[in-house]
Amino acid sequence: MVLRQNDSVLGQLANFAQAEKIPSANFTGMGFVDITFGFFDFETKKYKPRDFKHIELVSMHGTIAWKKGSTSIHAHGVVADKAFQAFGGHILNATVGTGSVEIFIIVHNKQFERTKDDAIGADVLSLD
Amino acid sequence: MVLRQNDSVLGQLANFAQAEKIPSANFTGMGFVDITFGFFDFETKKYKPRDFKHIELVSMHGTIAWKKGSTSIHAHGVVADKAFQAFGGHILNATVGTGSVEIFIIVHNKQFERTKDDAIGADVLSLD
Amino acid sequence: MVLRQNDSVLGQLANFAQAEKIPSANFTGMGFVDITFGFFDFETKKYKPRDFKHIELVSMHGTIAWKKGSTSIHAHGVVADKAFQAFGGHILNATVGTGSVEIFIIVHNKQFERTKDDAIGADVLSLD
Repeated sequence: MVLRQNDSVLGQLANFAQAEKIPSANFTGMGFVDITFGFFDFETKKYKPRDFKHIELVSMHGTIAWKKGSTSIHAHGVVADKAFQAFGGHILNATVGTGSVEIFIIVHNKQFERTKDDAIGADVLSLD
Repeated sequence: MVLRQNDSVLGQLANFAQAEKIPSANFTGMGFVDITFGFFDFETKKYKPRDFKHIELVSMHGTIAWKKGSTSIHAHGVVADKAFQAFGGHILNATVGTGSVEIFIIVHNKQFERTKDDAIGADVLSLD
Repeated sequence: MVLRQNDSVLGQLANFAQAEKIPSANFTGMGFVDITFGFFDFETKKYKPRDFKHIELVSMHGTIAWKKGSTSIHAHGVVADKAFQAFGGHILNATVGTGSVEIFIIVHNKQFERTKDDAIGADVLSLD
Protein backbone atom coordinates (compact mmCIF):
# COMPACT_ATOMS: atom_id res chain seq x y z
CA MET A 1 0.00 0.00 0.00
CA VAL A 2 1.48 3.34 -1.03
CA LEU A 3 -0.01 6.51 0.45
CA ARG A 4 0.52 9.97 -0.97
CA GLN A 5 0.63 13.52 0.38
CA ASN A 6 -2.17 14.50 2.79
CA ASP A 7 -3.47 10.93 3.15
CA SER A 8 -4.36 9.95 6.70
CA VAL A 9 -2.24 6.90 7.55
CA LEU A 10 -4.60 5.40 10.15
CA GLY A 11 -7.66 6.38 8.10
CA GLN A 12 -6.37 4.64 4.98
CA LEU A 13 -5.47 1.53 6.99
CA ALA A 14 -9.02 1.46 8.42
CA ASN A 15 -10.50 1.94 4.93
CA PHE A 16 -8.38 -0.92 3.62
CA ALA A 17 -9.40 -3.21 6.50
CA GLN A 18 -13.09 -2.47 5.97
CA ALA A 19 -13.02 -2.65 2.16
CA GLU A 20 -11.11 -5.94 2.14
CA LYS A 21 -12.94 -7.31 5.22
CA ILE A 22 -9.66 -8.63 6.62
CA PRO A 23 -9.91 -10.63 9.87
CA SER A 24 -6.72 -9.06 11.27
CA ALA A 25 -3.26 -7.97 10.16
CA ASN A 26 0.20 -6.77 11.12
CA PHE A 27 1.86 -3.98 9.22
CA THR A 28 5.11 -2.05 8.91
CA GLY A 29 5.67 1.21 7.12
CA MET A 30 8.01 4.09 6.39
CA GLY A 31 7.88 7.47 4.73
CA PHE A 32 7.59 11.18 5.44
CA VAL A 33 4.85 12.53 7.72
CA ASP A 34 3.26 15.00 10.11
CA ILE A 35 2.55 12.90 13.17
CA THR A 36 1.02 13.09 16.65
CA PHE A 37 2.28 10.72 19.33
CA GLY A 38 0.51 10.11 22.64
CA PHE A 39 1.95 8.81 25.90
CA PHE A 40 -0.69 6.96 27.91
CA ASP A 41 -1.08 8.24 31.45
CA PHE A 42 -2.38 5.30 33.47
CA GLU A 43 -3.68 7.64 36.19
CA THR A 44 -5.84 9.88 34.00
CA LYS A 45 -6.38 7.12 31.36
CA LYS A 46 -5.63 9.72 28.70
CA TYR A 47 -2.91 10.20 26.10
CA LYS A 48 -0.62 13.22 26.43
CA PRO A 49 -0.05 14.28 22.81
CA ARG A 50 2.86 15.88 20.98
CA ASP A 51 3.06 16.89 17.32
CA PHE A 52 6.05 16.44 15.02
CA LYS A 53 5.92 18.16 11.61
CA HIS A 54 7.81 17.42 8.37
CA ILE A 55 9.61 14.46 9.80
CA GLU A 56 10.95 11.17 8.50
CA LEU A 57 8.83 8.20 9.55
CA VAL A 58 11.78 5.86 10.06
CA SER A 59 9.51 2.96 10.88
CA MET A 60 5.93 2.19 11.81
CA HIS A 61 4.54 -1.04 13.26
CA GLY A 62 1.09 -2.06 14.16
CA THR A 63 -1.80 -4.41 14.36
CA ILE A 64 -5.22 -4.22 12.75
CA ALA A 65 -7.96 -5.80 14.86
CA TRP A 66 -11.64 -5.22 15.50
CA LYS A 67 -13.62 -3.83 18.41
CA LYS A 68 -17.39 -4.33 18.39
CA GLY A 69 -17.57 -4.24 14.59
CA SER A 70 -15.22 -1.30 14.06
CA THR A 71 -11.57 -1.46 13.10
CA SER A 72 -9.14 -1.06 15.99
CA ILE A 73 -5.69 -0.06 14.80
CA HIS A 74 -2.75 0.02 17.19
CA ALA A 75 0.30 1.67 15.65
CA HIS A 76 3.69 2.75 16.96
CA GLY A 77 6.23 4.83 15.11
CA VAL A 78 9.82 6.02 15.17
CA VAL A 79 10.54 9.37 13.54
CA ALA A 80 13.77 11.29 12.98
CA ASP A 81 14.37 14.97 12.38
CA LYS A 82 16.89 16.79 10.14
CA ALA A 83 19.67 16.03 12.64
CA PHE A 84 18.60 12.34 12.65
CA GLN A 85 17.59 12.50 16.30
CA ALA A 86 14.94 9.85 16.95
CA PHE A 87 11.60 10.16 18.72
CA GLY A 88 8.92 7.56 19.03
CA GLY A 89 5.66 6.47 20.55
CA HIS A 90 2.07 5.47 20.13
CA ILE A 91 0.58 7.06 16.99
CA LEU A 92 -2.59 9.09 17.58
CA ASN A 93 -2.61 10.59 14.10
CA ALA A 94 -0.34 10.70 11.06
CA THR A 95 -0.67 12.47 7.73
CA VAL A 96 1.58 11.82 4.76
CA GLY A 97 3.91 14.78 4.14
CA THR A 98 5.89 15.68 1.04
CA GLY A 99 6.69 12.34 -0.54
CA SER A 100 4.95 9.11 0.33
CA VAL A 101 4.44 6.39 2.92
CA GLU A 102 5.01 2.74 1.94
CA ILE A 103 3.09 0.22 4.05
CA PHE A 104 3.59 -3.53 4.02
CA ILE A 105 0.63 -5.50 5.42
CA ILE A 106 0.51 -9.17 6.43
CA VAL A 107 -3.11 -10.30 6.61
CA HIS A 108 -4.04 -13.10 9.02
CA ASN A 109 -6.99 -15.45 8.53
CA LYS A 110 -8.05 -15.29 12.17
CA GLN A 111 -10.15 -12.49 13.62
CA PHE A 112 -8.46 -10.48 16.39
CA GLU A 113 -10.60 -8.50 18.81
CA ARG A 114 -9.59 -5.68 21.16
CA THR A 115 -11.45 -5.31 24.43
CA LYS A 116 -11.11 -2.72 27.13
CA ASP A 117 -9.30 -3.93 30.24
CA ASP A 118 -10.91 -1.87 33.00
CA ALA A 119 -8.05 -2.59 35.39
CA ILE A 120 -5.68 -0.52 33.27
CA GLY A 121 -8.17 1.61 31.33
CA ALA A 122 -6.69 0.62 27.99
CA ASP A 123 -7.59 -1.74 25.16
CA VAL A 124 -5.89 -5.13 25.07
CA LEU A 125 -5.64 -7.43 22.08
CA SER A 126 -7.41 -10.77 22.42
CA LEU A 127 -6.34 -13.70 20.23
CA ASP A 128 -9.08 -16.14 21.34
CA MET B 1 1.14 -13.64 21.30
CA VAL B 2 -0.10 -11.15 23.89
CA LEU B 3 1.86 -10.80 27.13
CA ARG B 4 0.50 -9.18 30.28
CA GLN B 5 1.94 -7.28 33.22
CA ASN B 6 5.05 -8.78 34.86
CA ASP B 7 5.60 -11.34 32.08
CA SER B 8 9.21 -11.74 31.00
CA VAL B 9 9.33 -10.98 27.27
CA LEU B 10 12.39 -13.09 26.44
CA GLY B 11 11.28 -15.82 28.86
CA GLN B 12 7.86 -16.14 27.25
CA LEU B 13 9.41 -16.22 23.78
CA ALA B 14 11.74 -19.03 24.90
CA ASN B 15 8.81 -20.93 26.44
CA PHE B 16 6.85 -20.56 23.22
CA ALA B 17 9.80 -21.78 21.11
CA GLN B 18 10.30 -24.83 23.33
CA ALA B 19 6.61 -25.70 23.71
CA GLU B 20 5.94 -25.42 19.97
CA LYS B 21 9.34 -26.91 19.01
CA ILE B 22 9.74 -24.26 16.29
CA PRO B 23 12.85 -24.59 14.08
CA SER B 24 13.40 -20.81 14.04
CA ALA B 25 11.45 -17.58 13.82
CA ASN B 26 11.49 -13.81 13.39
CA PHE B 27 9.34 -11.60 15.54
CA THR B 28 8.26 -8.00 16.05
CA GLY B 29 6.50 -6.54 19.05
CA MET B 30 5.30 -3.45 20.85
CA GLY B 31 3.89 -2.50 24.23
CA PHE B 32 4.82 -1.02 27.57
CA VAL B 33 7.83 -2.33 29.54
CA ASP B 34 10.64 -2.14 32.04
CA ILE B 35 13.69 -2.96 29.95
CA THR B 36 17.46 -3.43 30.19
CA PHE B 37 19.60 -2.73 27.14
CA GLY B 38 23.23 -3.78 26.78
CA PHE B 39 25.93 -2.33 24.54
CA PHE B 40 28.50 -4.99 23.62
CA ASP B 41 32.05 -4.00 24.40
CA PHE B 42 34.24 -5.94 21.96
CA GLU B 43 37.30 -5.46 24.19
CA THR B 44 35.86 -6.88 27.40
CA LYS B 45 33.35 -9.13 25.50
CA LYS B 46 30.68 -7.99 27.97
CA TYR B 47 27.48 -5.98 27.71
CA LYS B 48 27.30 -2.62 29.50
CA PRO B 49 23.73 -2.49 30.77
CA ARG B 50 21.26 0.33 31.33
CA ASP B 51 17.72 0.11 32.72
CA PHE B 52 14.68 2.03 31.49
CA LYS B 53 11.52 1.87 33.61
CA HIS B 54 7.84 2.47 32.70
CA ILE B 55 8.61 3.13 29.08
CA GLU B 56 6.85 2.62 25.77
CA LEU B 57 8.31 -0.27 23.76
CA VAL B 58 7.91 1.45 20.40
CA SER B 59 9.17 -1.58 18.54
CA MET B 60 11.00 -4.82 19.12
CA HIS B 61 12.62 -7.08 16.53
CA GLY B 62 14.39 -10.34 16.83
CA THR B 63 15.25 -13.84 15.82
CA ILE B 64 14.63 -17.11 17.60
CA ALA B 65 17.32 -19.70 16.91
CA TRP B 66 18.96 -22.54 18.82
CA LYS B 67 22.36 -23.04 20.41
CA LYS B 68 23.33 -26.56 21.46
CA GLY B 69 19.73 -27.55 22.20
CA SER B 70 18.71 -24.37 24.01
CA THR B 71 16.79 -21.45 22.56
CA SER B 72 18.94 -18.50 21.51
CA ILE B 73 16.92 -15.30 21.23
CA HIS B 74 18.43 -12.15 19.78
CA ALA B 75 16.19 -9.13 20.30
CA HIS B 76 16.59 -5.40 19.72
CA GLY B 77 14.21 -2.71 20.87
CA VAL B 78 13.36 0.96 20.54
CA VAL B 79 11.74 2.64 23.53
CA ALA B 80 10.42 6.17 24.08
CA ASP B 81 9.84 8.10 27.27
CA LYS B 82 7.10 10.58 28.25
CA ALA B 83 8.72 13.26 26.09
CA PHE B 84 8.85 10.77 23.17
CA GLN B 85 12.65 10.77 23.15
CA ALA B 86 13.86 7.47 21.70
CA PHE B 87 16.48 5.07 23.03
CA GLY B 88 17.38 1.69 21.69
CA GLY B 89 19.67 -1.28 21.79
CA HIS B 90 20.19 -4.95 22.35
CA ILE B 91 17.64 -6.29 24.85
CA LEU B 92 19.16 -8.09 27.85
CA ASN B 93 15.89 -8.26 29.75
CA ALA B 94 12.35 -6.90 29.42
CA THR B 95 9.32 -7.21 31.68
CA VAL B 96 5.82 -6.17 30.65
CA GLY B 97 4.73 -3.03 32.50
CA THR B 98 1.26 -1.60 32.99
CA GLY B 99 -0.64 -2.66 29.89
CA SER B 100 0.52 -5.37 27.54
CA VAL B 101 3.03 -6.38 24.88
CA GLU B 102 1.78 -7.65 21.49
CA ILE B 103 4.22 -9.93 19.66
CA PHE B 104 3.89 -11.08 16.06
CA ILE B 105 5.96 -14.20 15.25
CA ILE B 106 6.79 -15.62 11.81
CA VAL B 107 7.89 -19.23 12.20
CA HIS B 108 10.34 -20.69 9.67
CA ASN B 109 10.55 -24.37 8.78
CA LYS B 110 14.35 -24.41 8.79
CA GLN B 111 16.43 -24.75 11.94
CA PHE B 112 18.73 -21.79 12.65
CA GLU B 113 21.71 -22.28 14.94
CA ARG B 114 23.83 -19.68 16.72
CA THR B 115 27.48 -20.39 17.32
CA LYS B 116 30.11 -18.39 19.11
CA ASP B 117 32.56 -16.60 16.85
CA ASP B 118 35.74 -16.53 18.91
CA ALA B 119 37.24 -13.75 16.76
CA ILE B 120 34.65 -11.30 18.03
CA GLY B 121 33.54 -13.03 21.23
CA ALA B 122 29.89 -12.91 20.26
CA ASP B 123 27.31 -15.35 18.91
CA VAL B 124 26.62 -15.29 15.18
CA LEU B 125 23.58 -16.73 13.45
CA SER B 126 24.23 -19.62 11.07
CA LEU B 127 21.69 -20.41 8.35
CA ASP B 128 23.38 -23.58 7.07
CA MET C 1 20.72 -13.57 5.24
CA VAL C 2 23.65 -13.01 7.57
CA LEU C 3 26.27 -10.42 6.63
CA ARG C 4 29.72 -10.23 8.14
CA GLN C 5 32.25 -7.50 8.85
CA ASN C 6 32.93 -5.02 6.01
CA ASP C 7 30.00 -6.25 3.91
CA SER C 8 27.96 -3.49 2.29
CA VAL C 9 24.38 -3.91 3.49
CA LEU C 10 22.67 -2.29 0.50
CA GLY C 11 25.18 -3.86 -1.90
CA GLN C 12 24.53 -7.37 -0.60
CA LEU C 13 20.76 -6.83 -0.75
CA ALA C 14 21.09 -5.71 -4.38
CA ASN C 15 23.29 -8.74 -5.18
CA PHE C 16 20.72 -11.03 -3.59
CA ALA C 17 17.85 -9.44 -5.53
CA GLN C 18 19.70 -9.76 -8.83
CA ALA C 19 21.04 -13.29 -8.23
CA GLU C 20 17.64 -14.61 -7.14
CA LYS C 21 15.72 -12.47 -9.67
CA ILE C 22 13.12 -11.63 -7.02
CA PRO C 23 10.14 -9.54 -8.22
CA SER C 24 10.11 -7.48 -5.00
CA ALA C 25 10.57 -7.86 -1.27
CA ASN C 26 10.31 -6.34 2.18
CA PHE C 27 13.07 -6.81 4.72
CA THR C 28 14.01 -6.12 8.33
CA GLY C 29 17.43 -6.37 9.88
CA MET C 30 19.61 -5.70 12.88
CA GLY C 31 23.29 -5.79 13.78
CA PHE C 32 26.33 -3.59 14.25
CA VAL C 33 27.34 -1.06 11.58
CA ASP C 34 29.02 2.05 10.25
CA ILE C 35 26.14 3.92 8.62
CA THR C 36 25.34 7.08 6.66
CA PHE C 37 21.85 8.56 6.92
CA GLY C 38 20.47 11.22 4.58
CA PHE C 39 17.65 13.70 5.16
CA PHE C 40 15.96 14.63 1.90
CA ASP C 41 15.78 18.35 1.27
CA PHE C 42 12.75 18.87 -0.96
CA GLU C 43 14.08 22.27 -2.08
CA THR C 44 17.50 21.15 -3.31
CA LYS C 45 16.27 17.58 -4.06
CA LYS C 46 19.40 16.28 -2.35
CA TYR C 47 20.13 14.24 0.76
CA LYS C 48 22.03 15.91 3.60
CA PRO C 49 24.22 13.12 4.95
CA ARG C 50 25.57 12.26 8.39
CA ASP C 51 27.85 9.37 9.38
CA PHE C 52 27.56 7.23 12.50
CA LYS C 53 30.45 4.87 13.29
CA HIS C 54 30.59 1.71 15.43
CA ILE C 55 26.95 1.84 16.27
CA GLU C 56 24.20 -0.67 17.00
CA LEU C 57 21.75 -1.07 14.13
CA VAL C 58 18.69 -1.45 16.35
CA SER C 59 16.44 -2.04 13.38
CA MET C 60 16.36 -1.67 9.64
CA HIS C 61 13.33 -1.79 7.35
CA GLY C 62 13.00 -1.56 3.66
CA THR C 63 11.64 -2.50 0.31
CA ILE C 64 13.37 -4.02 -2.68
CA ALA C 65 11.88 -2.90 -5.99
CA TRP C 66 13.14 -2.24 -9.49
CA LYS C 67 13.73 0.89 -11.54
CA LYS C 68 14.32 0.49 -15.28
CA GLY C 69 15.96 -2.92 -14.85
CA SER C 70 18.12 -2.05 -11.84
CA THR C 71 17.36 -2.83 -8.22
CA SER C 72 15.91 0.06 -6.24
CA ILE C 73 16.33 -0.44 -2.51
CA HIS C 74 14.67 1.89 -0.03
CA ALA C 75 15.89 1.33 3.52
CA HIS C 76 15.41 3.12 6.82
CA GLY C 77 17.28 2.42 10.02
CA VAL C 78 17.33 3.16 13.73
CA VAL C 79 20.74 3.11 15.44
CA ALA C 80 21.77 3.56 19.06
CA ASP C 81 25.09 4.60 20.57
CA LYS C 82 26.87 3.47 23.75
CA ALA C 83 24.47 5.53 25.86
CA PHE C 84 21.52 3.93 24.00
CA GLN C 85 20.47 7.25 22.49
CA ALA C 86 18.62 6.60 19.25
CA PHE C 87 19.09 8.19 15.84
CA GLY C 88 17.40 7.26 12.62
CA GLY C 89 16.74 8.02 9.02
CA HIS C 90 16.98 7.07 5.39
CA ILE C 91 20.02 4.83 4.81
CA LEU C 92 22.43 6.08 2.13
CA ASN C 93 25.13 3.55 2.98
CA ALA C 94 25.82 0.94 5.65
CA THR C 95 28.79 -1.33 6.24
CA VAL C 96 28.79 -4.21 8.71
CA GLY C 97 31.00 -3.41 11.71
CA THR C 98 32.48 -5.75 14.31
CA GLY C 99 29.97 -8.57 14.56
CA SER C 100 27.24 -9.22 12.02
CA VAL C 101 23.98 -8.03 10.51
CA GLU C 102 21.01 -10.43 10.37
CA ILE C 103 18.47 -9.66 7.64
CA PHE C 104 15.05 -11.27 7.26
CA ILE C 105 13.57 -10.95 3.76
CA ILE C 106 9.98 -11.59 2.66
CA VAL C 107 9.90 -12.06 -1.10
CA HIS C 108 6.74 -11.11 -3.00
CA ASN C 109 5.67 -12.67 -6.30
CA LYS C 110 4.64 -9.34 -7.82
CA GLN C 111 7.10 -6.95 -9.44
CA PHE C 112 7.31 -3.52 -7.78
CA GLU C 113 8.68 -0.58 -9.75
CA ARG C 114 9.95 2.77 -8.50
CA THR C 115 9.48 5.80 -10.70
CA LYS C 116 10.59 9.34 -10.21
CA ASP C 117 7.82 11.73 -9.20
CA ASP C 118 8.94 15.04 -10.72
CA ALA C 119 6.59 17.02 -8.48
CA ILE C 120 8.63 16.09 -5.42
CA GLY C 121 11.93 15.12 -7.04
CA ALA C 122 11.99 11.74 -5.33
CA ASP C 123 11.29 8.14 -6.30
CA VAL C 124 7.89 6.70 -5.40
CA LEU C 125 6.98 3.03 -5.23
CA SER C 126 4.38 1.85 -7.74
CA LEU C 127 2.42 -1.34 -7.05
CA ASP C 128 0.61 -1.49 -10.40
